[in-house]
Amino acid sequence: MNKLESAGHNIYFDTRLAPLAEIIENGKYSNVFVFADRNTAELCLPVFREMLDDFSGFDLIETDPGEENKNIDFCIGIWKTLLDFGADRKCLVINLGGGVITDMGGFVASTYKRGVDFINIPTTLLSQVDASVGGKTGIDIDNVKNMVGTFSLPQAVFIEAEFLKTVPQREMLSGFAEMIKHGLIADQEYYYQLKAADYKNITTAAIHRSVEIKNEVVTADPQEKGLRKILNFGHTIGHAVESYSLSKDKKPLTHGEAIAIGMICEAYLSHKNSTLTAEELEEIRQYISKVYPAYKIKEKSFAQLSVFMQSDKKNEHGNVLFSLLQSIGKCTYNCRVSESDIVESLEYYNLTYAK
Amino acid sequence: MNKLESAGHNIYFDTRLAPLAEIIENGKYSNVFVFADRNTAELCLPVFREMLDDFSGFDLIETDPGEENKNIDFCIGIWKTLLDFGADRKCLVINLGGGVITDMGGFVASTYKRGVDFINIPTTLLSQVDASVGGKTGIDIDNVKNMVGTFSLPQAVFIEAEFLKTVPQREMLSGFAEMIKHGLIADQEYYYQLKAADYKNITTAAIHRSVEIKNEVVTADPQEKGLRKILNFGHTIGHAVESYSLSKDKKPLTHGEAIAIGMICEAYLSHKNSTLTAEELEEIRQYISKVYPAYKIKEKSFAQLSVFMQSDKKNEHGNVLFSLLQSIGKCTYNCRVSESDIVESLEYYNLTYAK
Repeated sequence: MNKLESAGHNIYFDTRLAPLAEIIENGKYSNVFVFADRNTAELCLPVFREMLDDFSGFDLIETDPGEENKNIDFCIGIWKTLLDFGADRKCLVINLGGGVITDMGGFVASTYKRGVDFINIPTTLLSQVDASVGGKTGIDIDNVKNMVGTFSLPQAVFIEAEFLKTVPQREMLSGFAEMIKHGLIADQEYYYQLKAADYKNITTAAIHRSVEIKNEVVTADPQEKGLRKILNFGHTIGHAVESYSLSKDKKPLTHGEAIAIGMICEAYLSHKNSTLTAEELEEIRQYISKVYPAYKIKEKSFAQLSVFMQSDKKNEHGNVLFSLLQSIGKCTYNCRVSESDIVESLEYYNLTYAK
Repeated sequence: MNKLESAGHNIYFDTRLAPLAEIIENGKYSNVFVFADRNTAELCLPVFREMLDDFSGFDLIETDPGEENKNIDFCIGIWKTLLDFGADRKCLVINLGGGVITDMGGFVASTYKRGVDFINIPTTLLSQVDASVGGKTGIDIDNVKNMVGTFSLPQAVFIEAEFLKTVPQREMLSGFAEMIKHGLIADQEYYYQLKAADYKNITTAAIHRSVEIKNEVVTADPQEKGLRKILNFGHTIGHAVESYSLSKDKKPLTHGEAIAIGMICEAYLSHKNSTLTAEELEEIRQYISKVYPAYKIKEKSFAQLSVFMQSDKKNEHGNVLFSLLQSIGKCTYNCRVSESDIVESLEYYNLTYAK
């Protein structure tokens, strides 16, 4: 149970980074860099050092925290820093942090001198259950998420519950939304298990199951030609709401809060355009709205949301394509949905919280 | 003879782009973009259109010509342009131009939405015999060449002698240096054939042989873990001289002129540190200095050249590594050379032209 195999590398669970020393040893790396943001450098780096017996054979590259800094300017800064350090192709980059760090660090590593090795140590629940698996790297351009990136696999991934101790409850819930999604799209039993358990106390076993589900899906379709798109359930509308909130709200939604909204809207679309029953829709709506705070999607934002959806990466030939539930635990993809249905789903979300 | 197979795609020779229509048809692309610089848009685009029976089903993305524009700012511009055009993952990018266009266009395409299809139509001799094969994409950072990039394969490559009609003699010679290199590292007979022929009249058969040699090498080692490094013969010093010239000279050296210098220096190193005989060194020196104009490597530039060599991508563990000739037609790699030998080789080059 303490490791999963994923496309040629391992995902380790609660090993206290024990295999890392050997990986570094065997890789004969010329330099090791740890990439972290200011917060993880403060909170997680001491734990990282402790786990590695005060290992200090690395240079720290620090960046500013936050999704708004997952941009090309920071990448340029990191590329130049690596160059200044004389980093060659045999260097190793260890990404220690949340999804921003693993996405951006993976992108920088996969393009520096046409690609150097990297290892991901996701330190938030969201990055452990989502960004950790599947080889996606990326940065945002003009607030459009992951508009530029690569498919590149890390040498290894380490998931350590220890790091979650420093994660605030709101951030834990952000990751929890992806876990709910994993149940909804692929495993009914897991969904009901999550619901029955206390969402304020997430077990390593539950994290393991989420990573396993995601791993099965991405292994079957690494390049997102088909099946992998089911992981986007809740994300077409969710990403649009997230981008909008990021650009307009004083206190923007977390990723998971936006995806929670997206899942309610897209469950509505699943009922209207696929085979999700009214009872299942109601089940999903009730549970998610119990866990996540209410948010008002302003009517005047609808047009802008539509613009964001148009640039969704799943789209083909100008059509906004959705991944929709057929039932709880089963998902389909490449579904066309009318503009008016999308608007209805946003109104449905707003109504549900007005109750 | 009119096509070569390379890692899952074809390199077509003088087909007047005949297979392109079918590739576009079969790919069911949502959009087709042609990426060109101002010069190729003026000189090559009309030929491109004519070959495709006035095909107009594409949008043109134009950039400024020149190596100094192979930078991240232009990439950002192109990514945003693609975004503005609503380009999705099913779009196709056709890179029409020299190495700057194919390198940068390939990088942009391989990272836009984590990768879209692209086709290369190299229009200079240099890009036909060099950039066209091997799946390297890249851009320069702070004048350091190809510091950021990916290994990504195009859907197809088209080499058309027709485009060379607009290439000035100096640019033809720039590409010819790579052809000489192909002979020197892998095919003695081909080297002597090139020498015997008129370098002002380069045949498609010769281009074909160069592409074939490069293709054999990169197919054996796509990720440049070993053998592929022989293609860097002449490039460790050559790139450094090129970077220096680009930053200091009013009329900078072309790539090939710099590589010609690099090949004389590294032939000297090959004689001193490998098995290249004195006669072979003299043969190479004489031939290259007959074809390429003299250049003075200033003594005060030696330190800066050394700095550029330190950031060469082939280096490992802080060592500048060279690819050296064992004889004409045979090359080895990962050779360490002393700092003083490097300086000697630069002085050897300067002396040779002082004669």
